[in-house]
Amino acid sequence: MSEHAETPGTPTGPQSEGGTGVWFIGARGSVATTAVAGCAALAAGLRPPTGMVTESRAFAAASLPALSRLVFGGHDTVDWPLPKRAEALAEQGVLPHGLGQAVHRELAAADREIRTGGPLAGDSRSDEELIAAFAADIEDFTRRGRLARTVVVNVASTEPVPAPGGARLPASSLYAAAALRAGCAYVNFTPSAGMHHPALAKAARAAGVPYAGRDGKTGQTLLRAVLAPMFAQRALEVRAWSGTNLLGGGDGAALADSAAAAAKNAGKNRVLQDNLGVLPEGQVHIDDVPALGEWKTAWDHVAFEGFLGSRMILQTIWQGCDSALAAPLVLDLARLAARAHEAGLTGSLPQLGFYFKDPDGGSPALAEQYEALLAFAATLGHSR
Amino acid sequence: MSEHAETPGTPTGPQSEGGTGVWFIGARGSVATTAVAGCAALAAGLRPPTGMVTESRAFAAASLPALSRLVFGGHDTVDWPLPKRAEALAEQGVLPHGLGQAVHRELAAADREIRTGGPLAGDSRSDEELIAAFAADIEDFTRRGRLARTVVVNVASTEPVPAPGGARLPASSLYAAAALRAGCAYVNFTPSAGMHHPALAKAARAAGVPYAGRDGKTGQTLLRAVLAPMFAQRALEVRAWSGTNLLGGGDGAALADSAAAAAKNAGKNRVLQDNLGVLPEGQVHIDDVPALGEWKTAWDHVAFEGFLGSRMILQTIWQGCDSALAAPLVLDLARLAARAHEAGLTGSLPQLGFYFKDPDGGSPALAEQYEALLAFAATLGHSR
Amino acid sequence: MSEHAETPGTPTGPQSEGGTGVWFIGARGSVATTAVAGCAALAAGLRPPTGMVTESRAFAAASLPALSRLVFGGHDTVDWPLPKRAEALAEQGVLPHGLGQAVHRELAAADREIRTGGPLAGDSRSDEELIAAFAADIEDFTRRGRLARTVVVNVASTEPVPAPGGARLPASSLYAAAALRAGCAYVNFTPSAGMHHPALAKAARAAGVPYAGRDGKTGQTLLRAVLAPMFAQRALEVRAWSGTNLLGGGDGAALADSAAAAAKNAGKNRVLQDNLGVLPEGQVHIDDVPALGEWKTAWDHVAFEGFLGSRMILQTIWQGCDSALAAPLVLDLARLAARAHEAGLTGSLPQLGFYFKDPDGGSPALAEQYEALLAFAATLGHSR
Amino acid sequence: MSEHAETPGTPTGPQSEGGTGVWFIGARGSVATTAVAGCAALAAGLRPPTGMVTESRAFAAASLPALSRLVFGGHDTVDWPLPKRAEALAEQGVLPHGLGQAVHRELAAADREIRTGGPLAGDSRSDEELIAAFAADIEDFTRRGRLARTVVVNVASTEPVPAPGGARLPASSLYAAAALRAGCAYVNFTPSAGMHHPALAKAARAAGVPYAGRDGKTGQTLLRAVLAPMFAQRALEVRAWSGTNLLGGGDGAALADSAAAAAKNAGKNRVLQDNLGVLPEGQVHIDDVPALGEWKTAWDHVAFEGFLGSRMILQTIWQGCDSALAAPLVLDLARLAARAHEAGLTGSLPQLGFYFKDPDGGSPALAEQYEALLAFAATLGHSR
Repeated sequence: MSEHAETPGTPTGPQSEGGTGVWFIGARGSVATTAVAGCAALAAGLRPPTGMVTESRAFAAASLPALSRLVFGGHDTVDWPLPKRAEALAEQGVLPHGLGQAVHRELAAADREIRTGGPLAGDSRSDEELIAAFAADIEDFTRRGRLARTVVVNVASTEPVPAPGGARLPASSLYAAAALRAGCAYVNFTPSAGMHHPALAKAARAAGVPYAGRDGKTGQTLLRAVLAPMFAQRALEVRAWSGTNLLGGGDGAALADSAAAAAKNAGKNRVLQDNLGVLPEGQVHIDDVPALGEWKTAWDHVAFEGFLGSRMILQTIWQGCDSALAAPLVLDLARLAARAHEAGLTGSLPQLGFYFKDPDGGSPALAEQYEALLAFAATLGHSR
Repeated sequence: MSEHAETPGTPTGPQSEGGTGVWFIGARGSVATTAVAGCAALAAGLRPPTGMVTESRAFAAASLPALSRLVFGGHDTVDWPLPKRAEALAEQGVLPHGLGQAVHRELAAADREIRTGGPLAGDSRSDEELIAAFAADIEDFTRRGRLARTVVVNVASTEPVPAPGGARLPASSLYAAAALRAGCAYVNFTPSAGMHHPALAKAARAAGVPYAGRDGKTGQTLLRAVLAPMFAQRALEVRAWSGTNLLGGGDGAALADSAAAAAKNAGKNRVLQDNLGVLPEGQVHIDDVPALGEWKTAWDHVAFEGFLGSRMILQTIWQGCDSALAAPLVLDLARLAARAHEAGLTGSLPQLGFYFKDPDGGSPALAEQYEALLAFAATLGHSR
Repeated sequence: MSEHAETPGTPTGPQSEGGTGVWFIGARGSVATTAVAGCAALAAGLRPPTGMVTESRAFAAASLPALSRLVFGGHDTVDWPLPKRAEALAEQGVLPHGLGQAVHRELAAADREIRTGGPLAGDSRSDEELIAAFAADIEDFTRRGRLARTVVVNVASTEPVPAPGGARLPASSLYAAAALRAGCAYVNFTPSAGMHHPALAKAARAAGVPYAGRDGKTGQTLLRAVLAPMFAQRALEVRAWSGTNLLGGGDGAALADSAAAAAKNAGKNRVLQDNLGVLPEGQVHIDDVPALGEWKTAWDHVAFEGFLGSRMILQTIWQGCDSALAAPLVLDLARLAARAHEAGLTGSLPQLGFYFKDPDGGSPALAEQYEALLAFAATLGHSR
Repeated sequence: MSEHAETPGTPTGPQSEGGTGVWFIGARGSVATTAVAGCAALAAGLRPPTGMVTESRAFAAASLPALSRLVFGGHDTVDWPLPKRAEALAEQGVLPHGLGQAVHRELAAADREIRTGGPLAGDSRSDEELIAAFAADIEDFTRRGRLARTVVVNVASTEPVPAPGGARLPASSLYAAAALRAGCAYVNFTPSAGMHHPALAKAARAAGVPYAGRDGKTGQTLLRAVLAPMFAQRALEVRAWSGTNLLGGGDGAALADSAAAAAKNAGKNRVLQDNLGVLPEGQVHIDDVPALGEWKTAWDHVAFEGFLGSRMILQTIWQGCDSALAAPLVLDLARLAARAHEAGLTGSLPQLGFYFKDPDGGSPALAEQYEALLAFAATLGHSR
């Protein structure tokens, strides 16, 4: 019997029966590690659910899977044990000191369910072979855990924008195809292509699963999604909206690749374009600043005109920890997508636009996205 | 025949027949001057209506009075001709250079309709005598101009919070009482007591006019009304919200009086309290900085907690010109209140909460206030 | 034999013979705790001496006492063991996790040398009795440790500005008087009166010890001491300099008392006045924001005029940890004052103006203060 | 007799006899226009000399040419009359309204002395022919005006970094060569190559004139030149220094060319490298934001470590008008270079490092540069 033959999530297994699997692409990254550790801490009552929208009262009747019933696994291409990763995040101030110790069992359990992803350097497998292998990993996880269903969530590093007409699928789309093949709901928290690749359109329609994305809205764009509507509602004319992001961690390094940054910026600009009706002057920079570690600073400078052409300026400075901002939203999304799957919904979920920079339709304004989310929660509560 | 016997608004009069009067309390202040000059510039097509919400498409069918049909007058206690005031505002960069010249006729016309307010130092008139005198001024303005109706709009300097049980009404409430007596709709763009004084409650109910207030939301609080809901919707815990306002102009001097500042801050805090459900730590300072002239800088520092207690910070810096921000909103409100009066609405107008720090009911979140405003506009379009 | 009869600094004593005592007023506070822990960490080679000016090359020949030869004790009125205090500081991110454990022996040693200060609530002792008791504590510490000398360093919470003609000395001056009586050099890192009280002038002259102060320059004022000279050198006219400080910790609470804040602000203003030749418009606020813990944010807004009256603005935002900024400077000062004492210098030390908001003479510009400090170090190297 | 045969500077000529010529490369740009208008305004006593260092007391005895004795001319490749340019600058808020009118005579006089520069598109002249033509223009200006001497000052748009081994000299170096040939002192206020081109080294040595440069320090780098020494003096470790500049005007467009930005950034980085001893992490961005007009915003984010590795952040936001900042410094430099020429100094002038991002030697810290400048002024006073 293989090393992985035991029931996922616990040494003994039965308690995960009927649970909900959460399969992370990028399962050893900061976001996934924080999500696993945080979910365990919340389920154990060690911490309040700050930052988790689905733990607020409005979601109480939505029949979402309980946090204690989420079981974690995933793919990654690196080999860094989750408990060690959690320690490193505590050093960075992302996780509270001592938390990694307190939820060591859950981190180790998730760690055992992480499989090697790909394609690795020199990998000779075809796209089809990779998809099949990934889907098998996911199905094995679901089966062994006797899980009711599994949601695949992409939290891997941002990929460069794929060149048009490229012969191979980008990795994010290979994983998305694997999710479809394994019959799983899918969430893309990154700006990578994932399910949006044209080559997946047919399979996505056929699969009959719900999916959502893309590119989580955690900081600068979250702000833009509330500030841009304000300018529009007050009939103030935004002349230029400029921004600079400083970030360390793996994200900074990934985005220093200008093609990856381009993918990210497309989402940021879309929020402005859709809310203002026009894209103002101004650029967005993403700088890799390793000294900042897991912390990020985003400066925005908005030059706008008021009555009679008067010139005014709004500046915002956001200092946050992306992993801590993303992790609870990722848990939200996994629960919502699992419940949507259970309720028989298929295709894209524009009702989750609240979470994304580049959602599949719906209003671009956060307030309206929030209303749509609440309405969705109400719907989920009624359906079965 | 007295110096003021001619028809208000123009030398010759007839064109104002059936127009809408706008009677400013504080008619020689920066906001009123900017509103009069700007209204003329927009009516003449010299400038686009940036900053005026009621000129956006959503209000096209609301049957609001046209800008070209607004006729201005008001009370003030100083004696500085509006055209001179407009020149000074151009020196400060509030009005474009040359605009005062271009709309000199309209400024001079409004100037002729400004009456001396009160109570002045040493004024021996009783509250009742003052109210009667103010009401007579307003009625005279309406009658001579053959105006369909007049809206009284308070844009005077902020008063100190009135001491409880004071024997006299504060000036703002004297003017509000005069508006009631003259049968006028009333808008309070300041934090002063105005119509909110308990002594006016009975008369307000009896008068059968609509009124709205109070304390226009033009900068820091406007931001708070979109940012606070964002934190609430994302389940992020605001620990402390601190702010400092630097402002010159008359407003800075008025608010340097700490009792007046207290009136202002009550509104700012209410926006946080109502949106967050709890008032976080933090103070608000208002500093008089004459060197800034008509310009204002507001710095806000929000310390909040995310997932697992991670500590993050948002800072905003707003650099605006209060008069340029307030003037178009004041014109909006005058039009909306006039139309509400025409439509037979009476009592407070919570539908106008979009404009106020301390509105009479309704949601505290800007996005919902905007929806309520649009719904109100639709209602006005249908009623007659 | 009393509980305190052993040699200070170590269980066994001899290694402190000839060492230098550092006697903290406020010995259980954040600054003192950080200084004791940090000194031990540096002496053991666990950390580089970031933030310690006297560890830079320019001081190598100044014959300062080695960090490993500093022995700590002090007065405080609270009863919170230093090792516990260090743990709390690690929770706040001031000290690295694990450091308190690594230097537990040194913290415990210093803890044993802390005596109860005063006057406590209901203390019936006269000023003279208190001074005598404090001086006896210091002398006992020096004698038992067979220390070459002891420097008294005030790092206690800021006192309110003493009312003129008060019958009693403020506590900080009682301790300063005790330092004189014990023949110790004295450093006042706070804005409290300390040695500056007129009642101490005669004793200070007679004592023949060096002293320095007051009010350490760690953040906003440090910046002002480099930025104000820049404006002056460039002939730019500063019109208004406004600032807000948000701070938690004990300091925030102490300074929320407006009289204590007044003491602090006097120093901040002096830096502007002395560098600009005139005090510009603008206020300074100090807000207690407990949510910030040991961290502090200082926002400064400088409105200045350039050529032909053009209006420009500089804003700075400083986010620091006061204890981490102060502690190395406190160690610097203790070493420099001890060496000055050894070299026979007496009276105030204007050469240490680099460290203070309100120094006893010398240039107000940081660059010139630094030059003066380097020159002083050179002098110390030559003297014996 | 040609259109330009009259005496430069005035219609009638004699009053410029013995005056000092200031020949601008980029004579129709914002900086030159502001300098000409401002010099006239100051000479006429219309405005105080804010921003001019050489008008401060320390320079009173340096025998600098009086502002009223400066005569302006220059090269440019565009054809926009200076009085019109001044009007446009007043619209932008750079010049006070009405100033252009008040000094119209001086602007028109300077305008008449502007010659067409080059090389223009399709210009078939060789480098040598261009140099000869430029030098002839300058000599003609000096001769007709009976000027004691002329200083050539480069305030043209920043050129891209020249490719190594390019066959042609960049325009800035052609002008610098012309200055040498005409026997003129030379100042390079831009980051362009100018006198620093290796091909000019021999001629520069032979010419026996003083020259200074390069790249005026007016905003972000000015700040860096005072803040970086502060960190160094306090032994704080700068981990990352990141910056973004938003600027409109011609400068923004010129620097949007990434090669020109590279030239600019080299100077900015040099200030950090030289003051900190090491170049920290971090990038500098220069964005063209036409909506900002002549105004510029520079945001800097400095991540630094203090005692025991504590992490702190300083941010600065500079909102200035580059022309208004540069113009008085350009006048300073013209006067100082003219006086240096008169005093017989030759070669580079490291004493003027106070003004430059990338000076020819001397300290990189502003305070020491200021001292060096004062010492230079004293020297100039003594020499003749």
